[in-house]
Amino acid sequence: MANFKKEVAIIGIGLTQFGELWDKSFRSLIAEAGNKAIIDAEIKPDQIDGLFGGNMSGGLFIKQEHLASLAMDHGALLPMPAMRIESACSSGGQALRAGYMAIKSGLHEVVVAGGVEKMTDVLTGPTTEALATAADQEWEAFYGVTFPGEYALIARRHMNDYGTTEEQMAQVAVKNHYNGARNPNAQYQKEITLETVMKSTKVADPLKLFDCSPITDGAAAVILASAENAKEFCDNPIWLVGSGAATDTLALHDRDDLTTLKATVVAAQSAYKHAGVTQKDIDMAEVHDCFTIAEICAIEDLGFCKKGEGGKFTEQGHTSLTGDIPINTSGGLKSKGHPVGATGIAQAVEIVLQLRGDAGKRQVKNAEIGLTHNVGGSGGSCAVHIFSR
Amino acid sequence: MANFKKEVAIIGIGLTQFGELWDKSFRSLIAEAGNKAIIDAEIKPDQIDGLFGGNMSGGLFIKQEHLASLAMDHGALLPMPAMRIESACSSGGQALRAGYMAIKSGLHEVVVAGGVEKMTDVLTGPTTEALATAADQEWEAFYGVTFPGEYALIARRHMNDYGTTEEQMAQVAVKNHYNGARNPNAQYQKEITLETVMKSTKVADPLKLFDCSPITDGAAAVILASAENAKEFCDNPIWLVGSGAATDTLALHDRDDLTTLKATVVAAQSAYKHAGVTQKDIDMAEVHDCFTIAEICAIEDLGFCKKGEGGKFTEQGHTSLTGDIPINTSGGLKSKGHPVGATGIAQAVEIVLQLRGDAGKRQVKNAEIGLTHNVGGSGGSCAVHIFSR
Repeated sequence: MANFKKEVAIIGIGLTQFGELWDKSFRSLIAEAGNKAIIDAEIKPDQIDGLFGGNMSGGLFIKQEHLASLAMDHGALLPMPAMRIESACSSGGQALRAGYMAIKSGLHEVVVAGGVEKMTDVLTGPTTEALATAADQEWEAFYGVTFPGEYALIARRHMNDYGTTEEQMAQVAVKNHYNGARNPNAQYQKEITLETVMKSTKVADPLKLFDCSPITDGAAAVILASAENAKEFCDNPIWLVGSGAATDTLALHDRDDLTTLKATVVAAQSAYKHAGVTQKDIDMAEVHDCFTIAEICAIEDLGFCKKGEGGKFTEQGHTSLTGDIPINTSGGLKSKGHPVGATGIAQAVEIVLQLRGDAGKRQVKNAEIGLTHNVGGSGGSCAVHIFSR
Repeated sequence: MANFKKEVAIIGIGLTQFGELWDKSFRSLIAEAGNKAIIDAEIKPDQIDGLFGGNMSGGLFIKQEHLASLAMDHGALLPMPAMRIESACSSGGQALRAGYMAIKSGLHEVVVAGGVEKMTDVLTGPTTEALATAADQEWEAFYGVTFPGEYALIARRHMNDYGTTEEQMAQVAVKNHYNGARNPNAQYQKEITLETVMKSTKVADPLKLFDCSPITDGAAAVILASAENAKEFCDNPIWLVGSGAATDTLALHDRDDLTTLKATVVAAQSAYKHAGVTQKDIDMAEVHDCFTIAEICAIEDLGFCKKGEGGKFTEQGHTSLTGDIPINTSGGLKSKGHPVGATGIAQAVEIVLQLRGDAGKRQVKNAEIGLTHNVGGSGGSCAVHIFSR
């Protein structure tokens, strides 16, 4: 096991229920996740000196920008500094990275890295249109392509190049619903069968309804502290030991290879290097399964299996809760839900629960090192983080 | 003069023309500002290892989120990490702070801190409606209040409490247009008279058309480097020696005092402390004059004059180009223009030009220390930075 630099710790976590939360507002979700994290950390709000908040599109979803100040107001954290971080669906992962840098810079000692999205209150246009602003507006979204279509192109190419089957993709959904059924915060807490996925409505051929993550409301927060503060406040800090991020073209057609997300590859290499580990050291990972094919690409691009073998690897059970490398023990975006700006932070919450041994019915045994992988759009951005006990 | 910690330097600056740029797109503005900064720094693009991009509302203005990845693509900086920073009209200032933290954290060595807004291409609603998302949607914007109305309330209260006059506010506009007439990048390069301001159309009583900053397209970029890199790349680095930020309620009615922007006061105290200076050490400042009353509040809240005396202080000429403390030598938001997400970075560009001695007809003599002050909304957020030769 690597001799990690234990410089930035997660000392508190908070997660709301994920789902279609008609009775909860954007601001109440922020307050709920933030307060849970503060209570979990057993600190006082005035010990927090900053916030980095991930959100994709408050402007289009709820006609509200200036979102980090709103969070400070409704989290009773005024007048400390705050900024909102946006990188489409990887906004949460990038907010975690911003919080890490804030602590390491010495400008902050204890910060919240949070994420929130309220997707079911759209005022200015349909949700799919808002999500399509993560694609290239001038070369993709304007012509009507949306994300199911983009990932369907990736899936078809993967099937063509590597013989990946629709059944193998469906197995990702079956596994993630199995895990989600063991997560009380998940949007869908029901197991499903392969037949359910295969018989579900086509959304964008070859992707079917059960290959797609849902529209979700939710918020998540973690509290980060420097090593000195962590030791003072906390008996069981989880250490954030590696951070990597990368970018790629927004437009899918500008890439060399549709099935390799270069942003994932570069971000992962950077995070592994930063932490001083290789993919073999990772005990479990939360990866960005916005569509089932995305999980297959992710486990390949992160190095957990060879390129092209992600479908077979999944089918063989290696990524199941009791497999060699459990993937998306939380249920993933597919079953836990995908409030886009919150997802990257919710992934971190799951890894912390696992490393603390608090993951209940979905606990992975003897977990020491976890990884989160958060993608923006069809791979225009990626953030990878590595955590250790 | 303070013995500054010279740890983070600005080694390059780039600014587009500000104005109604019908022939320039969002992405071409990013590329233009970024390339100018790279050329100014005399470095190669592949020496840059990250970007922090300020933007208020790409979603509402041009139906594009995922903006930092877009910037990397169009700035030929892929696959390096990037994130967009949003804090309404202080997005640029917060992006500068994020860039500072990135360098100080050790995760990055040379980064771009940029800002951009394309406000004249609105697809989804009028510009004023998009800007109003910086206010509290549920308690302000929903009921129809927009920013001229909010600042009119502040102005009326200032007039009531301190005897500030409409003529004193108008003097802010006259001074800033005088300066803007000497700035080839300014949107309005024309001097105006007190009479022009006083006779202009009422927008929100007591604010008239010439009390208001305009709608502007534009982009700005600075390149930040660690001290080691700065010394290698650059003969005349300008040092970023202090960073402070703060938040306040979005809604004006939640504040103790309408005329004191608490976010400015807290951010300024934090920046002064960080740099080890007081307001007396500042030779010049770019402040957030989205409305003329905002400049009056700013020079009070930053400590350049006593509370309530900002109008008189301006009238007496202390803030003019040859005064004790020149304010908004660039022309400020009022005359240079206010592309909201770019403004905080454009302020930094002006201070760097002044400290280098490259400010041409608006050069302040013997300038050693400058300050930027960037406000979000009606004061829901603020970023203050201090720069030294």
